[in-house]
Parts: sequence; C-alpha cells; structure tokens
Amino acid sequence: MPEAFVWPVRVYIEDTDAGGIVFYANYLKFMERARTEYIRALGIDYRRPADVDVGYVVAHLEISYRRPARLDDLLLVRTKVAGKGRTYMCFEQNITNEKNELMVTGQVKVACVELGTGKPVRLPENLAAALDGVCPRQE
Amino acid sequence: MPEAFVWPVRVYIEDTDAGGIVFYANYLKFMERARTEYIRALGIDYRRPADVDVGYVVAHLEISYRRPARLDDLLLVRTKVAGKGRTYMCFEQNITNEKNELMVTGQVKVACVELGTGKPVRLPENLAAALDGVCPRQE
Amino acid sequence: MPEAFVWPVRVYIEDTDAGGIVFYANYLKFMERARTEYIRALGIDYRRPADVDVGYVVAHLEISYRRPARLDDLLLVRTKVAGKGRTYMCFEQNITNEKNELMVTGQVKVACVELGTGKPVRLPENLAAALDGVCPRQE
Amino acid sequence: MPEAFVWPVRVYIEDTDAGGIVFYANYLKFMERARTEYIRALGIDYRRPADVDVGYVVAHLEISYRRPARLDDLLLVRTKVAGKGRTYMCFEQNITNEKNELMVTGQVKVACVELGTGKPVRLPENLAAALDGVCPRQE
Repeated sequence: MPEAFVWPVRVYIEDTDAGGIVFYANYLKFMERARTEYIRALGIDYRRPADVDVGYVVAHLEISYRRPARLDDLLLVRTKVAGKGRTYMCFEQNITNEKNELMVTGQVKVACVELGTGKPVRLPENLAAALDGVCPRQE
Repeated sequence: MPEAFVWPVRVYIEDTDAGGIVFYANYLKFMERARTEYIRALGIDYRRPADVDVGYVVAHLEISYRRPARLDDLLLVRTKVAGKGRTYMCFEQNITNEKNELMVTGQVKVACVELGTGKPVRLPENLAAALDGVCPRQE
Repeated sequence: MPEAFVWPVRVYIEDTDAGGIVFYANYLKFMERARTEYIRALGIDYRRPADVDVGYVVAHLEISYRRPARLDDLLLVRTKVAGKGRTYMCFEQNITNEKNELMVTGQVKVACVELGTGKPVRLPENLAAALDGVCPRQE
Repeated sequence: MPEAFVWPVRVYIEDTDAGGIVFYANYLKFMERARTEYIRALGIDYRRPADVDVGYVVAHLEISYRRPARLDDLLLVRTKVAGKGRTYMCFEQNITNEKNELMVTGQVKVACVELGTGKPVRLPENLAAALDGVCPRQE
C-alpha cells in the first residue's frame, strides 16, 4: 500500500482559542491544506480545472480529537487516499505532534460537484487516474 | 422528548470561500455557537466555571454536508442533547436554511477536561442536572 | 449628523486566542458584519448587485486596539459613514463592551471594484443615494 | 539597514471568500505568522516567556490593500523592525505575489502587556537586545 503523504503545519496564535489549545474547527483547515498539497504533489492542479464550474466539496467527515495541540506545536498531517468512486474520493488523515503523539484522526469524503447546482459530477480524468495510482482499492 | 434549541446564524463574507459557499470548517463555528447558547439558555454559565482549570473540548464529531449555504443565507441551527455520561455530553445538531432545506447534520461529543492535563473530569453538578432535564436517556 | 448604526456581537470561543482575548484579526470580522448590516438596514442588498461582477473590497484601514475583549463579552459595533467618493465609501467604526468601555476604533475605506480585474467602478446608484442620506459630507 | 525577513505563505481555500479573493482579515494572519517567524529566527522564543503572564498584543495597525490575492497564490511576506520603545515594537510589512506585484502594505505596533490586566510592561531583555540588532533607529 502506498505510503501516506506528510504535510507539516505550524500552530500559530490564529489557530488557538482561550482554552490555550487549537480550536476544533481549525484542524479541518490543516487537513484541507494537506489534501490540497497531496493532490498538488500528484501533479494535479485540481483547484483550476478546465471546466471552471466544477469544484470539490466535503460531503462527510468523522473526526476524533485525542490530544489537544498548542501554540507553536509543529504538527504533521498524514493523508492517505482510502478509496474513490465515480464522483468522490475518500481520505484517511491523522495529525501527530513532534513527539509522534496522535492528536487527531479523521475520515473525509470529498465530492466533485457542479458549483452552480451542487450536483455530483464525474471526477476529472487526470485526477481519477492519479488517485488510482495511490488508492488501495476501488470502492 | 424536549424540543430542539434553535439558534439563527447569518452567513457573512467571512464564512464563505472562493467556491461561493460556506467553507466546511465554518459550520463547526455555527454549531459551537448554538451549543454555547443552548447551555446559556439552560441557565449555566459554562465557560466560567468556579474551577477555572476545567474546560469543554470536542472529543468526536461526525458531519454530513448535504447542501451548501451561501452568502447572506439566514440559517437555523437546531441542537438537541442526545445523551450524557459522567464526563461528557452528546449533541445532535442540524442546520437548515430559510426554505427549511437541510444543509448540514452532525453529532458532536463534548468532553469535560482538566485544561492543563486534558484528563476527563466529572461534569459540574449544575450542568449535569440541567442536561438531565433535556436529555432523552442516560447513556 | 445621523446617529451611528449599532450592531451587537457576542464573543465566542472561535474568536479568542491562547492569550485569552479576541484575536486581533477577528475584530475585522465584527466590523465587516456591522457594515453589511448597516447597508442592509439602508435597504440596499449590496452583496447581490444586478451586475454580478461588481464587488466591494477594503482598500485601506486603520485600527487602534485599546482594550482586549474576552470570551462571552457582548460587544456593540458602532458604524458611521464618514464620507464617500465616486468609487468608494469610508466608515468610522468603534467597538465597546457592556460597560461601555472602548475596545477598538477604526477607519475603513471600502472600494467598489470589478471583481475580475479589480478596477474601481462607480458605486451603484441606489447605494450612492442611500449613503448621501447618512453621509456628513461629500469628500 | 538590515534586510527584511521574508516568509512564504500559500493561499488555501480557507483564506478566500465568495468574491474569489483573500478575505481582508486573513492578511493579518499572514502578517502575524511572519512576525512570529521573524522573532523565532532572531533566536527568541517569545511566545513562552519565563514570566507566563506577559503577552504581545497588537496596539495599532494601518493596512493598504493594493491588489487581491487569490487561491493557490504563493505570497511572500516581508517584515522589518521599524522601531521599538520600552514596551512596544513597530513592524513594517508588505506582501507580494510570485510576479513580485505588491498586494498589501502595513505598519503594525505590537505592545508587550501583562495578560491579566492589559497593562504595558517592559519588553524582555533578550527580545529588546535582539531588536536592537535589526532596528534602524531608537524611537
């Protein structure tokens, strides 16, 4: 099975809250950055498709928050493609800190949609092909 | 069973992204505002407990994104207490728009922890009692 | 001179940072919400102009941070139209807390632009007329 | 005069808004990241001072928005120490894109305060000394 793609994220003051920890919604930003960079690393410029009315939206996610990250932490976001369908892709992601402690785990389903209507559309050919190269199984 | 608590949220430009829709992490802000206002409506000042080292952190969540919200939408966040344990509470939440279309549904587990160590601690008595009054069952 | 438009903002955990105070960028969100609601209160649906390629962007701002706001604070954002030109409008805004202490003051210049090119364009007629009604002087 | 410190920032979907451009408050996040990394590069761990009740808060800022940044842009934030006082430091910052076009310029005054009371306190010795090494003049 392919290795996970690893993307580093530094925790800045903007990411924290008055509890002294990273605000729970902000891990979703870190995970989105990592998915974007993974797709970029696969050679796909997926934010600028030829058909500009196609976009990618999260359809479902499940997150477990295990340990809170704090200011200045240097986190690693690990991302794997867990599967894909005709109109969507599924990612498994986790976040660890510098001590390799597990902070957050998550599964995220991203759908390809027509931006105007929100209707699911087929993944672009080059993206689908790139995902096949790193995807453990066809769902 | 008790009615859901309803909290309105207007979508501002800060909430949207370049896809013209609300960024997926920002619904978690809307849901947190609604949970906070629900607890406040129960008469609990839960952000300022006597023991200041106690805090509330999201331990787990699952979200389904069904329709995208857009700029200027006036959303309603419905929140129910779905259960509670000794150290946590579970919420069911959904978000609809002005046409009563379902945009987002989610389940969120919030744990009471010692902020310094992150260790689970017992819910404060007054919060536990207030939740009993709106909670369908003991988990 | 017309009274300022007043818009309330509750501080949620999303707005705070690890210093226990509202993160400095987030006051700009509060001020944008207040400007949007002011324009809405003037009867202008300024986010959905007939010519959809026209948008409003902040061109300049100056902010003084006087006292930090904290979690659960109920803030009031006061907004006045300080002037307008052919392609822009200027706002004076301040934020106070429940004790009427001054937290933040700011001046914000908002330009009307063609979204594709960023070029300044004339304010829509209905917006310009509405601003004339609340604007102390022509700049 | 010392060179500016340069910090790269990639624009992600989280940073953009429905106008297709970076939301105006989010440049303040980019500028804060760059100031933090500059201080870190000077060898100062300024977010974790020995006296934990001391913090750094923005007291004043002025920003000119010249060109909008867009999704996937790779920005460079240039930061110079423009001056310092007993209890504060002043930064000049600008942001350019990959074509070296100027997007944003700003001046930011950061005060050292007692977090509990908000009262200005003297900059820590090691920070003041490090700033002297890169500061064009004493204000």
